[in-house]
Amino acid sequence: MRVFGIDCGTETTGFGVVESDPHSRQPRLVCCAYGAVRLAKSKPMAMRLLQVYEELTLALERWTPDVVAIEEVFYSVNAKSALKLGQVRGVALLVAARLGLPLAEYAPLKIKSSVVGYGLAGKDQVQFMVARLLELPEPPQPQDAADALAIAICHIHTAQTLAMQEAGR
Amino acid sequence: MRVFGIDCGTETTGFGVVESDPHSRQPRLVCCAYGAVRLAKSKPMAMRLLQVYEELTLALERWTPDVVAIEEVFYSVNAKSALKLGQVRGVALLVAARLGLPLAEYAPLKIKSSVVGYGLAGKDQVQFMVARLLELPEPPQPQDAADALAIAICHIHTAQTLAMQEAGR
Repeated sequence: MRVFGIDCGTETTGFGVVESDPHSRQPRLVCCAYGAVRLAKSKPMAMRLLQVYEELTLALERWTPDVVAIEEVFYSVNAKSALKLGQVRGVALLVAARLGLPLAEYAPLKIKSSVVGYGLAGKDQVQFMVARLLELPEPPQPQDAADALAIAICHIHTAQTLAMQEAGR
Repeated sequence: MRVFGIDCGTETTGFGVVESDPHSRQPRLVCCAYGAVRLAKSKPMAMRLLQVYEELTLALERWTPDVVAIEEVFYSVNAKSALKLGQVRGVALLVAARLGLPLAEYAPLKIKSSVVGYGLAGKDQVQFMVARLLELPEPPQPQDAADALAIAICHIHTAQTLAMQEAGR
């Protein structure tokens, strides 16, 4: 199973591609790629959204994942930030839908629990554990790419748990 | 000048196409078309966004406007609603950017002032005045399409004012 994680942000939108076999007993996670769409603040919003659309489309077509995993909406931000973030998130969801890819959404707490084992873990802990789980020589940069990898790992862990539960029935 | 107005909403996204010559002394506004993208609540958000993308792209390709006019962000909603609205708005901005169309944004107060002459006008007053200005036999339905026409009219009025100011120099 190949999972494409997306961490939406109005300045940087991270992505990360992780592969694994959810049915294997001791599954090894493999990092295929990670990166980020860096948006210039000086650009009008519509141009920034076009960049997100084009770069995510390119990456998804390059990596042909089985599923796209994305963070669930985080409501504690204010309405102004939420609307801006929503615009980027809308484009990310659209790209997945246009390519006919199934979508999985995970709450931030669930993602951190799945990667660090602790839902209130800090950003650097997530980055450290992502590097460890994917056997990367150093923590992935930027932070948004590490977060996107964490979302992809969360999906694989969840799929593995479900597969084990089904096998145990 | 042909203007394509868009009124974004998470359930219904209205659009309206208005034409006029901003340089004429007594400009007549002509309504070319109006309509709405109606989104089924039962559909997943990504599918709704795909529908917005496809229907707006079709309408924009059909009407080849000179400019796309859209309402500026309205921050008095809560963060949850803002994020949902932002997702739809992001896709609308993307469609305009993909087609290389210039974008104009107007605040709700400005739109109502421009159409009704009163920034705090009610929805029905906007609908009534849109019908009157465009010489429509009845108020355009749904409300979101009337609002989209109002945004397009606001852009034309603004362009006319600017043209007159330039001529008067």
